[in-house]
This record gives sequence, C-alpha cells and structure tokens, in this order.
Amino acid sequence: MSKQSVRIAIDCMGGDIGLAVTIPAAIQFASQYDDVYCLLVGDGARIAEALASHGSISRDWYQIVHASEIVTMDDAVEVALRRKKDSSMRVAAQLVKDGQADACISAGNTGAWMAISRYVLKTLDGISRPAIATSIPNQKGGATLMLDLGANVDCTAEHLLQFAMMGSALASIVDKHPSPSIGLLNIGEEVIKGNEVVKQASELLRHSGLNFYGNVEGDDICKGTVDVIVCDGFVGNVVLKSLEGLAKMVASMLREEFTRNSLSMAAGLVAKPVLNRLGDRVDNRRYNGAALLGLRGIVIKSHGSADAYAFGYALQRARDASKHGLLAGINEAIQNLRLRLEAQNDETVAVDPHPESAL
Amino acid sequence: MSKQSVRIAIDCMGGDIGLAVTIPAAIQFASQYDDVYCLLVGDGARIAEALASHGSISRDWYQIVHASEIVTMDDAVEVALRRKKDSSMRVAAQLVKDGQADACISAGNTGAWMAISRYVLKTLDGISRPAIATSIPNQKGGATLMLDLGANVDCTAEHLLQFAMMGSALASIVDKHPSPSIGLLNIGEEVIKGNEVVKQASELLRHSGLNFYGNVEGDDICKGTVDVIVCDGFVGNVVLKSLEGLAKMVASMLREEFTRNSLSMAAGLVAKPVLNRLGDRVDNRRYNGAALLGLRGIVIKSHGSADAYAFGYALQRARDASKHGLLAGINEAIQNLRLRLEAQNDETVAVDPHPESAL
Repeated sequence: MSKQSVRIAIDCMGGDIGLAVTIPAAIQFASQYDDVYCLLVGDGARIAEALASHGSISRDWYQIVHASEIVTMDDAVEVALRRKKDSSMRVAAQLVKDGQADACISAGNTGAWMAISRYVLKTLDGISRPAIATSIPNQKGGATLMLDLGANVDCTAEHLLQFAMMGSALASIVDKHPSPSIGLLNIGEEVIKGNEVVKQASELLRHSGLNFYGNVEGDDICKGTVDVIVCDGFVGNVVLKSLEGLAKMVASMLREEFTRNSLSMAAGLVAKPVLNRLGDRVDNRRYNGAALLGLRGIVIKSHGSADAYAFGYALQRARDASKHGLLAGINEAIQNLRLRLEAQNDETVAVDPHPESAL
Repeated sequence: MSKQSVRIAIDCMGGDIGLAVTIPAAIQFASQYDDVYCLLVGDGARIAEALASHGSISRDWYQIVHASEIVTMDDAVEVALRRKKDSSMRVAAQLVKDGQADACISAGNTGAWMAISRYVLKTLDGISRPAIATSIPNQKGGATLMLDLGANVDCTAEHLLQFAMMGSALASIVDKHPSPSIGLLNIGEEVIKGNEVVKQASELLRHSGLNFYGNVEGDDICKGTVDVIVCDGFVGNVVLKSLEGLAKMVASMLREEFTRNSLSMAAGLVAKPVLNRLGDRVDNRRYNGAALLGLRGIVIKSHGSADAYAFGYALQRARDASKHGLLAGINEAIQNLRLRLEAQNDETVAVDPHPESAL
C-alpha cells in the first residue's frame, strides 16, 4: 500500500444484495484507480469466497476485516446501535474513527447507518446535526446537490444554515464549483410565502458569506437553477422519492408503449439508440452515493438496491471526498462563518452609542 | 336557460393569456355539454369582441357580466383583495355567493384567487382552513388526488384531518370512488419517521371513519397506492412543482435526442405515434383544474399557463363538482365525523369508572 492511497472501509454485507454487489464493485473500482486501498468489512470467510469467485487484480489492493454481525434492512435503529456491536457497519465506521480508513461506505439501512456513524464518529465542532446530501441530475447536464434528505425532520433556521455550509463545501470540493450557488427551497406565488423557519434561514443565509441565490421552488431542482438546494429532511425525503416515483413511471410507460404491438416494437428497435442515450442522461445510478455530512469522517450511503455499476459510483464519491479534503473544507467554512459573525458583533459594538450600557 | 343547467362564472380575464384562452374554451365547453350556462365575467366590450371573432353556437348559453378591473399575476394579495373591488375574480366569486352561479373558475394569480374567494364565500362550518387539491396522473392509469398544495404552510393535525375529509368527498363524488383510500404523506425508513404533526394526524385519521390506508411516501404519488394523499401546503407545493420540473426535463430531453441528427430524426418519425400515445397518457393538461376546497361554493383554479384545451378540463371539473354535489358531500363528511366524535365521547363517559370525578 502506497502512502498516498485512499483507504476506504466498505461494509460488504449491506444493501438489498450484499456481497454479490459490493465485491465485484470493489474489484472494478480498485482496478480503475490504483490509488485506492479497500478494507473489506464483513463475514471474512464469505468475503474470501466472493473474492475467489470473481477473480482478482495484480496489485495489493485489499484487506479483509472480519465483523461477525450484519445490520438488516428491517433492523430498528436501536437494535442496530445497541445490540449489534460487531456489525459490519459499526466496524467500518470504527476503522475511520481509528484512523485506519479515510472514508467508509454502506448500502445498508439508512437510519442505522446514520445512527451508527454518528455515534462512532461524532459531529464536527460547530455542526449540531448531520445531514444527508445527494446529487440529482438536472437539465443543464450537471447535477443539483440537495440536502437534507431525511436525517432531520424538524429543523431550525440555524440547522438550514449549517446544511448550506456543508453543501457548499461538498459542491466546491467534489463537484469542482469554486463558489457554488445556494438556493433555499420554498414555495412560490401561493398564499403565504414560506414558513417562519424558511424566512429566518433566508435572513441568515443572506449574511453568511455563502453565494446565496435566494429562494428556489420545486421545479428549480431539475432546471439546475442553483448548485445546492437546502431544505429540511422531511421535505427533501418526500421530494426525492416523488421524483424517483415519476422517473420509474415514465420509464415503465415507455417500455409499455414500445412493446404494445409489433408496430410499436419495430418503432422501438429503430428508436433504441436514441432512447438509450436518453436513458444514460437520466440514469440515476451515476449519481448514487449520498454523503452523510457533518461527521468527523467521510461517510457515504449507497442506495440499498444499487447494482455493482451504481455501487461503483458511490465508491468514487468516497474517494473524491477524501482526496479533495471534504472535512477540511467543511471545517474551513464553519471557521469562516464564525469569524464573520465575530466581526459583525465587533462592528455592532463599535457603533454602540451607549457603550457604558454594556456594563 | 333550462332549470337543470349548471351555471359557471368564468373569470375571462385571468391567467397568462386571458380572453384568447377562456373564450374559445367556454364556447367549446358549451357546445360539448348542453346543460351548462356560462357567466362570462370581465371587460364586457372585449368579451363581446372575442365572442364575435370565434363564432358561436346556436343555443342560449351565456351572459356577459361586466367587471371593470383585472387582478394581474403580479398583484399582491392585499392589492387584489382591498383595492380592486370590481375585479373579474371578485365579481365571479360574488355571483356564486349571490346564488347566480353554481361554481366559479379563474386561471389568475393563485394567492389572490384563494384570498378573494375565501373573503367573499367564507369557509364551511367545521372547516378552519381551505385547501388546494389537484389530481396527478399515476401509473395505474388513473390519478392521485393530492392536497394541500400551497394554501396552508403550517398545519396542525386537525387541519390535515379536515383536508382528508374534503379530499375524500371530492374523490368519491367527482372521481367516482365509493370510499376513496387516504394516505398521509410521510418519510420512510430514515432516522426519524415523520414529525409530530404527522404522527398526531395519523392517530386522528385512524379513528376518523375514513378509509385510511396509513402513511405513504413520495413515490406512492405516481404508483397510485391510494386515491387521496394528504400533506401540508409547503410539502405539497414543493412536490407538485418538483414533479412538473422533472416532467418538463424529460420532455425536453426527448425532443433534444430525437432531433440530434438526421438518423435520430428518422427514428423520431418512426417512433412518433408511440411517443404521442405516451404523451397523451402523461399530458397533465387533462388534469388541469385544482379545487379550492372548504369554501361555501365551488371554486376552481386553472393553471395560469393553461391553453384552451387545458382550460376546458378545468371547466369540466367545475361542472362535475357542481352536478355531483361536492359541497353537500363535504358537509356530510363533516357531519359524520362530528357524530362519530360525539359517540366516542359518550362511550368514554359510559365506561368512566369514577363518574363522580366529572363533578
């Protein structure tokens, strides 16, 4: 293992499929990037077996780290956290905590992965709540980063500000935007424009030093109006799943229409290359890999139903975040905000017409 | 005008386009249904001119009701409500209030239309907040009725229960479901399942006598898991606009891919009938016409950018709601719930082991 390696702890047992996805994805990933080193966490014997059945690559690219338990998709968070102390999830997070890995990834139960990684790694100074961020393909050919997607149901304006800072850091480092634009998800022309929390968050964002675009609406997600969209976890989760539902409906209707009769099938054959190109453009497997932001370590969540192709993209996210210093970026953003707030307070003091009142 | 006519007051000036949409739509509508009578509200001279330029139909199907002012798409709610007392919106709502029309419809500014119709018509007994409901096409070939879509940003559990009652009445009467299933929009497997308001609403719905399915997630909208989905207006508005945004993106990508080069264009020609069929299935113009529920009158809101085809569907919604007794249906649902609650209270008293403690 070279010194510059990015070491990624992979929960090999997580997700709807487990080893049959995680192992081939890891092999492919390690053959694609020679700077990665994988810590394959889970049932040691079964991992070795899976590795043997998939062939291997020449260089020294992995180490098996045995973990005796598996968090299932149905496990309650409490069970995962308190009773399965040797789960592959827990061990993967612990490897990051102990400095043996630079990032960790799981395709398992989201709630359990959030709870375990938060418990093991703790939150960064200045961050009260971690958030889940993911990229959604947009009309501009890029992707809109959106957070929170379900870690926090009830949020204060300060939480939304913190999400914006973390999202800005992720977008600037991983997606290479020098100063990403931030939008606050709100409602438009209707009777009452936004709730109190969103109004307050808008004020905070305006004075945050971030590149705050202002309020955006639901259709701005796919329009790609801004680089980062901030919302509470309830709204974010519902929106993400609604979009997934519509995408599935359109895909299934396309299939239905092109197989309705022999004429449609012929048309489908002719149109296939075009439809495939469209499919590639909206293929959300390329955007797999949500980041659990705000923790003292890089934590990635793959979609539970990801195939090896999609899991590979999530592994790339882990590598990118690590190579480009995501944690340092978030820390810097928090530090900048703190200095800015202190400067604002100093100014307020400087113009105080009754300085003695401070006594 | 025959006695069984459905009399619809149409704000002819509202929407992005106004007369060029509303007048041809009204003519087409009246020629399609011989039981409708239209009260064409707005600038009398311009309405007469528009009617003349579009030809007419043989029977006595309309009356022009002059209104001297127009609420613009940019007017603040306050301006629309307090300063434009002779607006076409206001006059249309007043016609319902005065018993001269059975329903009213506008494609204008949503916030103003909600405020004006609420001010003129007032809410039904037992309903504290009106809500906006619309149908979203689903994978089952039908549509999912969703509310609220932006009238109420901060909702209590009781508000969500009232939305469910009104949505159930609308779905059972207009969409002909005898006992529509109701889903409460929530988030799934993530860390914390739903916020407090949603948890309480779930309890209330379980004992409401409605056909309550339970919690649903974002992807259930397009799956068509339930007939009616209830949520607060912030979430509903964001979700609706997010879905519109994705639908537009997919449509524009399809166009782009099928016009990329001569080969794609040839494929597009072959695939055109199939793509048109798909387009028809997801054409949201057929679902135009949101209902403003909870008022003492039938109030329909058309999409501001609706064309005459889409506006015609909104007119049909107004006719359906009126013919099938939407208001009576909502009143009955409220009454049933009241009786049920009283019966529950009586039962509680009957089994009170310490009746004297009530003193």
